[in-house]
Amino acid sequence: MTPTPDTAERSGRGASARARRRDSRAAGPAGPAYITRAIPTYDVAPEESLVMIEDTAARILEEVGIEFRGGDAPAIEHWRAAGAEVSGERIRFPRGLVAEVLKTAPREFTQHARNPARSVVIGGRNTVMAPSYGSPFVMDADRGRRYGTIEDFRNFVKLAYSSPWLHHSGGTVCEPTDVPVNKRHLDMVLAHLTLSDRAFLGSVTAEERVVDSVEMARIVFGAAFAEQNCVVMGNFNVNSPLVWDATMTTGIRAYARANQGTVIVPFILGGAMGPVTMAGAIAQAHAETLVGCALTQLERPGAPTIYGNFLSSMSLRSGSPTFGTPEPAIGSMIVGQLARRAGLPLRCAGNFSNSKLPDAQAMGESVMSMLSAIHCGANFLLHSAGFLDGLLSMSYEKFILDADLCGALHSYMAGVVVNEDTLAMDAFQEVEPGGHFLGCDHTMRHYQTAFWDSQTADNEPWETWSENGSEDAMTRANRRWKQVLAEYEAPPMDEAIREALEDFVARRKSEMPDAWY
Amino acid sequence: MTPTPDTAERSGRGASARARRRDSRAAGPAGPAYITRAIPTYDVAPEESLVMIEDTAARILEEVGIEFRGGDAPAIEHWRAAGAEVSGERIRFPRGLVAEVLKTAPREFTQHARNPARSVVIGGRNTVMAPSYGSPFVMDADRGRRYGTIEDFRNFVKLAYSSPWLHHSGGTVCEPTDVPVNKRHLDMVLAHLTLSDRAFLGSVTAEERVVDSVEMARIVFGAAFAEQNCVVMGNFNVNSPLVWDATMTTGIRAYARANQGTVIVPFILGGAMGPVTMAGAIAQAHAETLVGCALTQLERPGAPTIYGNFLSSMSLRSGSPTFGTPEPAIGSMIVGQLARRAGLPLRCAGNFSNSKLPDAQAMGESVMSMLSAIHCGANFLLHSAGFLDGLLSMSYEKFILDADLCGALHSYMAGVVVNEDTLAMDAFQEVEPGGHFLGCDHTMRHYQTAFWDSQTADNEPWETWSENGSEDAMTRANRRWKQVLAEYEAPPMDEAIREALEDFVARRKSEMPDAWY
Repeated sequence: MTPTPDTAERSGRGASARARRRDSRAAGPAGPAYITRAIPTYDVAPEESLVMIEDTAARILEEVGIEFRGGDAPAIEHWRAAGAEVSGERIRFPRGLVAEVLKTAPREFTQHARNPARSVVIGGRNTVMAPSYGSPFVMDADRGRRYGTIEDFRNFVKLAYSSPWLHHSGGTVCEPTDVPVNKRHLDMVLAHLTLSDRAFLGSVTAEERVVDSVEMARIVFGAAFAEQNCVVMGNFNVNSPLVWDATMTTGIRAYARANQGTVIVPFILGGAMGPVTMAGAIAQAHAETLVGCALTQLERPGAPTIYGNFLSSMSLRSGSPTFGTPEPAIGSMIVGQLARRAGLPLRCAGNFSNSKLPDAQAMGESVMSMLSAIHCGANFLLHSAGFLDGLLSMSYEKFILDADLCGALHSYMAGVVVNEDTLAMDAFQEVEPGGHFLGCDHTMRHYQTAFWDSQTADNEPWETWSENGSEDAMTRANRRWKQVLAEYEAPPMDEAIREALEDFVARRKSEMPDAWY
Repeated sequence: MTPTPDTAERSGRGASARARRRDSRAAGPAGPAYITRAIPTYDVAPEESLVMIEDTAARILEEVGIEFRGGDAPAIEHWRAAGAEVSGERIRFPRGLVAEVLKTAPREFTQHARNPARSVVIGGRNTVMAPSYGSPFVMDADRGRRYGTIEDFRNFVKLAYSSPWLHHSGGTVCEPTDVPVNKRHLDMVLAHLTLSDRAFLGSVTAEERVVDSVEMARIVFGAAFAEQNCVVMGNFNVNSPLVWDATMTTGIRAYARANQGTVIVPFILGGAMGPVTMAGAIAQAHAETLVGCALTQLERPGAPTIYGNFLSSMSLRSGSPTFGTPEPAIGSMIVGQLARRAGLPLRCAGNFSNSKLPDAQAMGESVMSMLSAIHCGANFLLHSAGFLDGLLSMSYEKFILDADLCGALHSYMAGVVVNEDTLAMDAFQEVEPGGHFLGCDHTMRHYQTAFWDSQTADNEPWETWSENGSEDAMTRANRRWKQVLAEYEAPPMDEAIREALEDFVARRKSEMPDAWY
């Protein structure tokens, strides 16, 4: 990771001495920029199974192919030039072609944050946790479920910034449904860039919105710096099965053209958009993802791109998607193995749940899916906080509980340190059989850092808990998010940059009529 | 696994034809007898770390030693004869001695259930799930927390019997505090043997209660069968650090002498009964456990014994034990590796939580600890259902939620089947890009078994959930346990055996005055 200039220097605005003073004055929330795992991945599939899945993906690409719909002619032309067989919208990929194209994709890259201390390295042994993404509704224990607004959006950006255990500001943390559809991206990107100093995701819903997102990042990071470095990413969904829509591919190419990052994610609900058996769904996802990632390399070799994973299952009773269920949880381990074999950073989804409340179901499902993502080696973990209601709702209380779990996972991923000191032979020699270790030297040296200290769990004796009002976790989380928002302080920002951003947003809004669909 | 005679034949009572008719008439709850895992264990520690921990355990045994307190002279004499260095109550173990003694311990064994279809194989790739153990309190959503009674005890035995996802009846599913301390074991064992037909745990609190437990098992299984086969086990705690108490060692020897099973479990709260660093705590636990397991082999070579794991952490704020926390969760992976290297079946603890309610905290912590146990290769999973309040309370609602999680883990441990059928190439050839898989042949062949179907999760759309009363998981679980108890039917039992058991209990009770402490 090369050192990066501070924001003011990068943008060519302001005085670097002032910027440095400012940075040291307001360090913001503590916590590492990202996690570098000390534990291995959990590789459940043998080589033979992996080869069979890769072979099926190759057959899908070769025999069935993928349709590029909606008229993205340059994308289709890229594939024709690369050697694919094009028949109208249908593209078939000779065996080995996609892997060849992907050779220029980086295994690891840095997404820069406007606070250099919060830049994230994506790939390798690193894990970056970002809030949930895309819910039209928000909910909290006081007001229940309602459509998200720009105020909710800003609140979740503030909550993510304030948590020491999230590393990234995310993207559409909720839909700000009170802002016209065609202008939302401007207010969302502005919020990420001004209310947080973490890395963030830009718009993906139309090519011009991608261009706006990149342009706003250029204002903050400086055009020259942004040309050479990843300063914004977009999260793109495949239209499974086996369709890439022009809205997505033009956006993917726009980010890649600007040397910015893309996350390529199939959403396969087994039995609907893909086979009902995990092996087939994984093969399909592998094919779809690799083609999306490869498209970035055809647009601009070397552009950063991430292999995304979003396996899901289905309720046979209601037909609803289900989350935090066992089949996708264990299936994701294989997806992780495939991503590493493909040489691409891996995105997984974290704290999934279909519950409508931050209750026992919610956190049970969340831990199941979150640990799956950790074990399979996720490098970028979208949906790490707030996800409820099958992604339809972003929950304030769940956000707090999830962020606390993210904290616990920092300790989990640090693994067990085994050395002379931690083996504690000195303590065994000091403490006799039947004695206690509370006051021994070894305990004194280590107790402050030995155990993760949850901010939301109740670990008091029952009597104390009862005297304190018998609160459940949701009630404690409700109090906590209000406290965090009340204590929030915006990270410092060069006024000239802020004004330039606001001017850009105002100008772009003035160029468009409001569109509500 | 050799075929076992049915209960009536084994005991020499009743008519085998009648017994067979009875067995086929009332099969009882569905579900497999135990799980044989298709997924590998998650081995996080490299060889070098394992050797360092084993070396530290050997040094603890050699240099510090373990005290056998309370006057179990035969146990101490066993160790002296085996070559240990005995100095009063302190026993020091020359390097290699314990491993040598353990060579006769079986890697895998069958604990027989009175219904042969429910006998469990403990060890190897098998996992057996049993309810939580030892809580003095019970709680439910209607009546809150209160002392457990024999009625509660019987209810939990019925709930465990009725669940298709538990495999074992457990032991002290709650303390029946309305029965005198010295007579409880009789009522508890009677409940396991009559209200369930699953395998069970007997008493461990005094040698004579162990003898009673074995005697009652002999009545059911027949003395000759019980002499050659494991039909009851006891779960024994080390008095950490490094003390084995005579109450425990006489009980361990009594089970081993009868060729019955023992589970040997240190409970180390890091920083109190052991080092605050996981590596040291694991080394200590390894030393304590191996000595307990080895004692069984000195008493009777070949007696079945299980290596137990119960790592815990501590709240720095309250000093309480904490459960479902990250350090023990990842540390347990190493314990699993050590148990396999020692050649012993592994017991872990499952659905831990310190929460006082079956809320988000409860199931978040539970899934963290339960998945840890699954990943580390647990063969016998005590505390799989009901655990709340740091083990002080057995919860009716949590029992239901946990048992449902146990069900999900059946699918999880089945892994991802990768073969020509599951890879679904036929489906990709049938369904065009942009099509859907709902009606294709492949989906029709597989949809009924593709996905785990939770009985407690709500997967309805929000509107349906809202119309149905906006229930949380606790409310649904509350309704469920009442329904299960209402629908409970006792498994069939030979009347002569039942009478013999009841006569035994009545006689033994008449021989003792009530003791309440």
